[in-house]
Amino acid sequence: MKPRNLLYAQSGGVTAVINATAAGVIEAARMHADSVGRVLAARHGILGVLDEDLVDCSGLDDAELLALRQLPGGAFGSCRFDLDAPADNPAQFDRVLAVLAAHNVGYFLYNGGNGSMETAIKISQAARARGYPLTCVGVPKTVDNDLEGTDCSPGFGSAGKYLATSMREAGLDLRAMAGRRGRIFVMEVMGRNCGWLAASTVLARRAPDDAPHIVLFPEIPFDETAFLTRVERCVARLGYCAITASEGIRGADGSLLIEQGHDLSGHVQLGGIGQWLARLVHARLDYKYHWTVPDYLQRAAGHLVSATDRSQAEAVGWAAVQYAIAGRDCVMPGIRRRSDAPYRWEVEPVDLAPIANQERRVPRSFIDADGFDLSPAGLRWLGPLIEGQAPPPYLNGLPDYRLPDCPPVARRLGPYCG
Amino acid sequence: MKPRNLLYAQSGGVTAVINATAAGVIEAARMHADSVGRVLAARHGILGVLDEDLVDCSGLDDAELLALRQLPGGAFGSCRFDLDAPADNPAQFDRVLAVLAAHNVGYFLYNGGNGSMETAIKISQAARARGYPLTCVGVPKTVDNDLEGTDCSPGFGSAGKYLATSMREAGLDLRAMAGRRGRIFVMEVMGRNCGWLAASTVLARRAPDDAPHIVLFPEIPFDETAFLTRVERCVARLGYCAITASEGIRGADGSLLIEQGHDLSGHVQLGGIGQWLARLVHARLDYKYHWTVPDYLQRAAGHLVSATDRSQAEAVGWAAVQYAIAGRDCVMPGIRRRSDAPYRWEVEPVDLAPIANQERRVPRSFIDADGFDLSPAGLRWLGPLIEGQAPPPYLNGLPDYRLPDCPPVARRLGPYCG
Repeated sequence: MKPRNLLYAQSGGVTAVINATAAGVIEAARMHADSVGRVLAARHGILGVLDEDLVDCSGLDDAELLALRQLPGGAFGSCRFDLDAPADNPAQFDRVLAVLAAHNVGYFLYNGGNGSMETAIKISQAARARGYPLTCVGVPKTVDNDLEGTDCSPGFGSAGKYLATSMREAGLDLRAMAGRRGRIFVMEVMGRNCGWLAASTVLARRAPDDAPHIVLFPEIPFDETAFLTRVERCVARLGYCAITASEGIRGADGSLLIEQGHDLSGHVQLGGIGQWLARLVHARLDYKYHWTVPDYLQRAAGHLVSATDRSQAEAVGWAAVQYAIAGRDCVMPGIRRRSDAPYRWEVEPVDLAPIANQERRVPRSFIDADGFDLSPAGLRWLGPLIEGQAPPPYLNGLPDYRLPDCPPVARRLGPYCG
Repeated sequence: MKPRNLLYAQSGGVTAVINATAAGVIEAARMHADSVGRVLAARHGILGVLDEDLVDCSGLDDAELLALRQLPGGAFGSCRFDLDAPADNPAQFDRVLAVLAAHNVGYFLYNGGNGSMETAIKISQAARARGYPLTCVGVPKTVDNDLEGTDCSPGFGSAGKYLATSMREAGLDLRAMAGRRGRIFVMEVMGRNCGWLAASTVLARRAPDDAPHIVLFPEIPFDETAFLTRVERCVARLGYCAITASEGIRGADGSLLIEQGHDLSGHVQLGGIGQWLARLVHARLDYKYHWTVPDYLQRAAGHLVSATDRSQAEAVGWAAVQYAIAGRDCVMPGIRRRSDAPYRWEVEPVDLAPIANQERRVPRSFIDADGFDLSPAGLRWLGPLIEGQAPPPYLNGLPDYRLPDCPPVARRLGPYCG
């Protein structure tokens, strides 16, 4: 069989290790030159496919691949865009397939989260309906760790390592600055529905009184009275209290706290949840407060990636290519955990259909009985994912990140006006 | 002369390298056992002196001193507290001197910023007025870099390295996520009156289009129209725009933007300046936005200190002890720059009187003509300060910070009720 080209694209929020997956894909494809011709990447995910905006990754040398593996952010650009339902917009799928055909793409690898797996399925179905030979493989990625079908999601371990490190460091600062009046610190972390990243900050704690002292999960309805009581007790004991808050914590009625449309003075509350909580504590208990919103920093910190996470990110890239050339359509490489300590894992194919658009929340058994902390089982599960350092090279005091130099692929079709 | 004890204390906002200064003090004192007896540290700065809350650092072994050098935050606790004017509250100074006398303290080293230098002067004057033999030495420290009398302040280089790294990483994330609609990212950094930390983020840029694209200094009055024009042009060219904003940017009338008491909907604005700017751009130009507030993270990031900064932090600790035993009262070790490239510096004594309570702002020559960027001279000055990595040891995937185990010193006086 004549080799066919492979098209890789990145989708959704990017991570510190998604490009390690890209590097894994490119390296694995090279090992299978009998099956895979060129490795193309779409710019900005499926949008780049629709726009026929492609680059050719085949010319990257070993040094460039190493640099790609160490580069945070999405080297080829990402997008937040879902294809329509195939029945609603067949022209959109005609276009996707026309672009794939124009570039002799036989393998499509979509590197993303829950929604991206649905995109991979839709394209597979559209190809089949049109008689176009194509193998679609999903490749997992998300700092939110909310993908089903895999023990953990590449990207999460590095974000968790960054947040746990930051909480440990901020906790030392807070401890130094605490005075008689009492002081709190709130760290607002990503996680609209799932508290995995909030949970990861608990790894910062070595002794019972270390930060964080309270963790607010989106999985647990926010109980203001219980929260304030706990803050007060902590400050009475230590003089300070460090709090991790998922951006998506909700009231008992299930609505996002931050969208409940009120603040302490009766105005519409516009800020993030970290600030809101800090002000709540200040208003009720009169403590001084600081709050941080790491935002992009928590998912872009290439200088502090987890070596474990990066290995897994690369491994799912390699595996996805194996599945593709074996014709395993609509699967995703999932990580299966073999043991916690020593941590052992392997990659196995997982069907996309049952996992697309699902969301894996922190199980109740991973959260302590009172709902403000991780349980020992949760800690045991999380610990291995942040292990190992994989620092980038430095130049002039800063990480020496380099973007891959991949030439654009000449367009063969007219513009898309969908 | 019989050796007398040395009392060291930390004051003001802590840094990632202030404990390297403490380690330098302790090591240098050991080399001069003929002059210095025990090295004591006050808990929470001058408050610990008033409370007679002291610990003994003399027993730390080499491994503990190395750990101290790598520990962010203030190992002995800090405070934000100014002594009264000596004429207004002589009892307060009686107490300070009583505590110093009770513990045979002949050398007082105060490690802090502008206000702390004033404290050192006041204590020196009080000692002289009471005929108590004491040498008071200030030791510079501040992430804000606003101390006069020194080319740069220990603590600043590490915070700058952290922020420049974070801006480079967030810029890669932003680039990946940019879409047709346009997207901005705002990083709010410390600096109420001085834009040094904001300036440091410019080091992240290697190519003209790299982040940050706009820097807002407290030294330059905020011009909303010019700012929005610049944002719009940047987004038109790249699809995105990364902005660094000092927390202390001001309007043309000199008032803090964040305290001007308005937001876009007419309500009192409660958030930080990063969020305010992001919403301003969103309201006027309809771009998507993200914003980060690193807060404590920027000054506590022991995992990403500048080796240059840490060397300087340690050197000023060593020098302060030399000055103290030489009887050089009311001086501070300042860093004098000998050359930019190669970067050469030395430590020299600087009189405290002219520098206490002063504030060193970013000179106009370090800011570009249009006021939204650093000038080449500013870049040349900043570059060396973030050079070199000095990572801590890691254990279980996280920095293995260890607090020094210094026994409390038995109290010899009654409680202070001042």
